[in-house]
Amino acid sequence: MEDGTKDIERGGAWEDHSEEEEAALEKAFVETEIPSWQEQITIRSMVTSLVLSLVFNVIVCKLNLTTGVIPSLNVAAGLLGFAMVKTWTVLAESCGLLKQPFTRQENTVIQTCVVASSGIAFSSGTASYLLAMTPKIAGAGSAAINVKELSVGWMIGYLFVVSFVGLFSIVPLRKMMILKYKLSYPSGTATAHLINSFHTPKGAKVAKKQVWCLFKSFVGSFFFSCFKWFFAASDGCGFDSFPTFGLHALKQRFNFDFSATYIGVGMICPYMVNVSLLVGAILSWGVMWPIIQTKEGSWYKAGLKGSDIHGIQGYRVFIAISMMLGDGLFHVVYMVIVTVKNFMVQQSQQKHISDSMEEEQNIDEKRRKEYFLKDQIPNAAAITGYILLAALSVGLIPMIFHQLKWYHVLVAYSVAPILAFCNAYGCGLTDWSLASNYGKLAILIFSSWVGLEHGGIIAGLASCGVMMSIVSTASDLMQDFKTGYLTLSSPRSMFFGQVYGTALGCIMSPLVFWFFFKAYNVGDQSGSYPAPFATMYRAIATLGVEGFSSLPKHCLTLMIVFFVSAVAINLLIEILRKCDIKIYKFIPGPMCMAIPFYLGAYFSIDMCVGSLILFLWERQNKKGAKEYGPAVASGLICGDSLWGIPSAVLALSGVNSPMCMKFLSSSVNTRVDGFLQHA
Amino acid sequence: MEDGTKDIERGGAWEDHSEEEEAALEKAFVETEIPSWQEQITIRSMVTSLVLSLVFNVIVCKLNLTTGVIPSLNVAAGLLGFAMVKTWTVLAESCGLLKQPFTRQENTVIQTCVVASSGIAFSSGTASYLLAMTPKIAGAGSAAINVKELSVGWMIGYLFVVSFVGLFSIVPLRKMMILKYKLSYPSGTATAHLINSFHTPKGAKVAKKQVWCLFKSFVGSFFFSCFKWFFAASDGCGFDSFPTFGLHALKQRFNFDFSATYIGVGMICPYMVNVSLLVGAILSWGVMWPIIQTKEGSWYKAGLKGSDIHGIQGYRVFIAISMMLGDGLFHVVYMVIVTVKNFMVQQSQQKHISDSMEEEQNIDEKRRKEYFLKDQIPNAAAITGYILLAALSVGLIPMIFHQLKWYHVLVAYSVAPILAFCNAYGCGLTDWSLASNYGKLAILIFSSWVGLEHGGIIAGLASCGVMMSIVSTASDLMQDFKTGYLTLSSPRSMFFGQVYGTALGCIMSPLVFWFFFKAYNVGDQSGSYPAPFATMYRAIATLGVEGFSSLPKHCLTLMIVFFVSAVAINLLIEILRKCDIKIYKFIPGPMCMAIPFYLGAYFSIDMCVGSLILFLWERQNKKGAKEYGPAVASGLICGDSLWGIPSAVLALSGVNSPMCMKFLSSSVNTRVDGFLQHA
Repeated sequence: MEDGTKDIERGGAWEDHSEEEEAALEKAFVETEIPSWQEQITIRSMVTSLVLSLVFNVIVCKLNLTTGVIPSLNVAAGLLGFAMVKTWTVLAESCGLLKQPFTRQENTVIQTCVVASSGIAFSSGTASYLLAMTPKIAGAGSAAINVKELSVGWMIGYLFVVSFVGLFSIVPLRKMMILKYKLSYPSGTATAHLINSFHTPKGAKVAKKQVWCLFKSFVGSFFFSCFKWFFAASDGCGFDSFPTFGLHALKQRFNFDFSATYIGVGMICPYMVNVSLLVGAILSWGVMWPIIQTKEGSWYKAGLKGSDIHGIQGYRVFIAISMMLGDGLFHVVYMVIVTVKNFMVQQSQQKHISDSMEEEQNIDEKRRKEYFLKDQIPNAAAITGYILLAALSVGLIPMIFHQLKWYHVLVAYSVAPILAFCNAYGCGLTDWSLASNYGKLAILIFSSWVGLEHGGIIAGLASCGVMMSIVSTASDLMQDFKTGYLTLSSPRSMFFGQVYGTALGCIMSPLVFWFFFKAYNVGDQSGSYPAPFATMYRAIATLGVEGFSSLPKHCLTLMIVFFVSAVAINLLIEILRKCDIKIYKFIPGPMCMAIPFYLGAYFSIDMCVGSLILFLWERQNKKGAKEYGPAVASGLICGDSLWGIPSAVLALSGVNSPMCMKFLSSSVNTRVDGFLQHA
Repeated sequence: MEDGTKDIERGGAWEDHSEEEEAALEKAFVETEIPSWQEQITIRSMVTSLVLSLVFNVIVCKLNLTTGVIPSLNVAAGLLGFAMVKTWTVLAESCGLLKQPFTRQENTVIQTCVVASSGIAFSSGTASYLLAMTPKIAGAGSAAINVKELSVGWMIGYLFVVSFVGLFSIVPLRKMMILKYKLSYPSGTATAHLINSFHTPKGAKVAKKQVWCLFKSFVGSFFFSCFKWFFAASDGCGFDSFPTFGLHALKQRFNFDFSATYIGVGMICPYMVNVSLLVGAILSWGVMWPIIQTKEGSWYKAGLKGSDIHGIQGYRVFIAISMMLGDGLFHVVYMVIVTVKNFMVQQSQQKHISDSMEEEQNIDEKRRKEYFLKDQIPNAAAITGYILLAALSVGLIPMIFHQLKWYHVLVAYSVAPILAFCNAYGCGLTDWSLASNYGKLAILIFSSWVGLEHGGIIAGLASCGVMMSIVSTASDLMQDFKTGYLTLSSPRSMFFGQVYGTALGCIMSPLVFWFFFKAYNVGDQSGSYPAPFATMYRAIATLGVEGFSSLPKHCLTLMIVFFVSAVAINLLIEILRKCDIKIYKFIPGPMCMAIPFYLGAYFSIDMCVGSLILFLWERQNKKGAKEYGPAVASGLICGDSLWGIPSAVLALSGVNSPMCMKFLSSSVNTRVDGFLQHA
């Protein structure tokens, strides 16, 4: 589901780079020498990648632990990568130390590396399937076989084993997807345009301004977060619990909490994503939950804790899951149909297309094809690599999770490449990656296969990781190959960037997560780091092993209603789109609606504020908003997220903030004033 | 002193309308018919004046009661007057009901009327000398003869008696000041340019945009104030006591309190005014008071209340007064010297000038002179009016304040016209009105003349009103005559506007004040409405009757130091200015520095935030900031101030806000949490 949200936005933010622009693009670069693949990998780019990977790992990890909504950070990565290396080269040049100019190929390698590493931060599941294994998320009633304490050691090992397999699975597909089927990969294409534009003289000027915007909002956001810290001495203090719409609304998690991150996220996400979130929030926290809460004692046992899955929390979690599953299933089926259909059309027209292609090829395409085919990675090497790594996994994963047997893993690795192909192909067409949906299906299948008594929950969650890694890597990195194709980068340097980035991700992601995990009360439902997807993934696994009998009253009925609605809404959208009736653009997406079901309205309000800011900005200055909006938004996100580090350091070293901004009702305030006067 | 601050800004805000622009101005209006003076006074303009007078009375009253810093509201008055009548005429025109087009003369009459009425809001002294008479400001130790309870009845009567005299005193001076000496009156000139520009086709477009800006910031500011209200259930709650720089700084009144009014005021005031305020705040609350507080028990008795004038409060009040008096005295002396010098030069060159003038007169000046001289007000009528009204005052004022005898009033009225002339002449040269300085001198003189046992304090304060009214009216209304001269308005319609505005002011000012007085705890030193000048004026009167013996230890020494510094700083500024050394622009003014001595730093911080906003805006878009900055600032001030009305209504009807945003230190918070858990 994170994937869903993640990639809707990816496509949305930069989709307006039309194909027309590139017609004569390579002419501008005709005199620029293209470095060999070894030269595209420089020490400065590796250092830059390392720094940016860390920054983006922190950001993604924090987002995962708070709401799980992750915007596209490609623009920020591109900008910051450019800014860092450019600064370095300008400095080096002025000292006369510059040996090699900064090329767009080098920039692409950085981009690829950062995407690969922050992709791991997401697909490593530190905030979803891995965290879901812990006793804290499981609650008191779970058997020892169905929980597993986290430790940095086995997490890094596990990630190294599962994450590289995906890389080898996609390499053979590379030429087919990009050269043969000419899939569009909107995000990859947009990133390539961004990088190309940075490296043309005019583009560099805009980029410089963008970097300056990003920097300003970054600093502002960082210091605002720092400022907020001073007022949050304990839970219920500070801006997080600001009752913008009153104390009663705050109890239903309706408030604006001044989060720069989510304002920025809202600025990057398309308007409809934010509106969908808000609609979902109002439907759930404004209407449904208050109604269900009046049934306490009849529908479910009275006096349960707020976080008890057998009470109101059960409705929240399972209705959200069913809606997400409905949406996910629809998209998987839809994508399979589209993929198969397209594939068949392509096959039958293959000859014809390749003939006509030859004629139409312009200078751009000729050069791109030339460089894309220059440095080869043999298919045999890729397949051997996949088989070796898969064999290693089959041997090692059961040692980490003894609930999972070798044949389970083997089955997963046999099916995975097909799903990876589906996902990469579908992503090339629509820009949507459905990795987490495949992951959720894997949980359901493997957990019910293994069964409750044999540790089905852990088995399901672990297999989710295996599946998600391959499927997610396939689509993410194919986007990068498209970027590389359009920037004339060598596939070998790209592959190196991916390997390096994956390795960085496998080490950093658990470490960064561990930092947060130790510093904060991660997984506390009412705290700052509820890690919503951990609960959700565990609930899916529970559903897989226990069936529907454990749900509270009427929950199953509601789940079915929402599952069917999700499918119906998607169907409606697709039909309207096919008939070219424009209203489909204004129908909220079920995937987005489901997120606040569980979390509350606050972040959707933040995100709508972001939308509002962008909307007003666009009305005042459309061009400015388009050029600098994503930069400002990225700055807001990065600044706020980076404050997470000093803040976590302060928390770890036991430094408490000095003040509490407390919100009391008028009557309680009178009592407190009385108490303070007497004390 | 309020005058000082008020008029520095007046001059500053619009001083860049250079004389060159007007060269061919009247050509644009050559075909526009000029209405007769009766036609310049319309019912719609009188209604508009009434509404705007009320709005500005509320604003000025609120500002007077909070910090006493009043920015120039001329721009806002001009804009709003234009917007209201224009809306009306456009509506009437579309219904076919428009009989008379909207002329700049009509606009000038509205402007004059609003300025006259809000001038009364200031010179009526409801927040200074009148409030200073109340037992609340006096404190427990005052004899009955030295206090007087306020009531709307005698306040309105008193104002009617003293306010109209000034009008007649200036009428004979009109022609001399404007035609003969051609004084510049920067504020009046700027206002005339504004009005002229509104009524040329291009100007109307900019004006429309300005009005739109004003409206947006008005609405924003109004709702923000409304939002703030919800969090201020009691004292020490809400945004007013936001410890932006920590709780310790808040105790020294160092915080940013999110006041839209003072951010707007800061945007209108020149940078140096705001910087001076901040320097004064840091010097006093950051350095001096903390040091003096360590001497508690040695310099002054320990355990006194914070508001006791014999404790730390005494240092605050008297050091501020001495600095203000030093600054005021310097300017009075300086202005007298300049006035006399200029006057003598003018007299000797009179013949020569009037000769050359005749030749140089261009079309603009010819027309202006023609219309300025068209409708006469005979000098004899003016002088008779003055004598009659003065006689009435001499008879009536001792009936209201029996501490003041008829001969005291007679003396005041004999001296006043000379001072009024001085002030009007000086103001024409420098744009500074020193009315409140003359008022303060009157307090010192009359209170020591009458003496403590005979009610010298009340006598001094009442005579301050007599003096201030005449002197302040003289300069304010001469500015209006200049405006009228430049917009070809008839002196008769101007005079009518002044009379009408003064009458409105005499009724509204006490009523609006009464509203605040009843709704809030006005005069409470730590509350929202400390009415700083009431305390200050009373302290001056006390000084007049009691001498320096009642001051706390070392206070007199410090007073002398600051008095001398004020004179020295002003002298330095003047010398540097004369020698054309530009540093003088960066020397903080003593008058501005003294205000926060008494009040704390919070409003100077707000105002510096306003400066910062304007500065950043100017850096981004100089033209935009210049054109729309004053409009936005006016909107901020008006919106926030207008919320004062519903807020006061709510307070009067006993509706309390529902929440308290409380700021507790970490340790206190733990205790409160414990208390709330047990309760």
